[in-house]
Amino acid sequence: MDETLLQRKLGHIIRDRRLALGLSQEELADRCALHRTYVGSVERGERNISIQNIVRIANALDTRVWELIRAAEEGLPIP
Amino acid sequence: MDETLLQRKLGHIIRDRRLALGLSQEELADRCALHRTYVGSVERGERNISIQNIVRIANALDTRVWELIRAAEEGLPIP
Repeated sequence: MDETLLQRKLGHIIRDRRLALGLSQEELADRCALHRTYVGSVERGERNISIQNIVRIANALDTRVWELIRAAEEGLPIP
Repeated sequence: MDETLLQRKLGHIIRDRRLALGLSQEELADRCALHRTYVGSVERGERNISIQNIVRIANALDTRVWELIRAAEEGLPIP
């Protein structure tokens, strides 16, 4: 898969999971000690996000990193 | 999982997969247009690697990004 395509798809999956948990961007940002505007840019696929920030977001969304990535890479739902 | 722990485990999985494919760091670096010293630092777990570079390395190792991450996160082998 193309690098930026996975970056954008991962952003959408993060947003979908956040909404499914009923969280605002502010609440998600607080959970992972990241800035709300940063979370917004990740969700829009604008950030070449690092592994450490992906872990923080996955933890805050109560899911495994690989499950987030698989949902983005394969279009499979998060269990 | 702790951010830096996954970073280190991912580095080990990348190295193991490279060796299983019989590739040198130089050959892997060439495949993904990254510098050999960068690949070395990723394998040693010293790099907070970005999603785009993980994609490039996964592609070069002929595996899916989520499979690399799952191997690091869960200790499961790459299919």
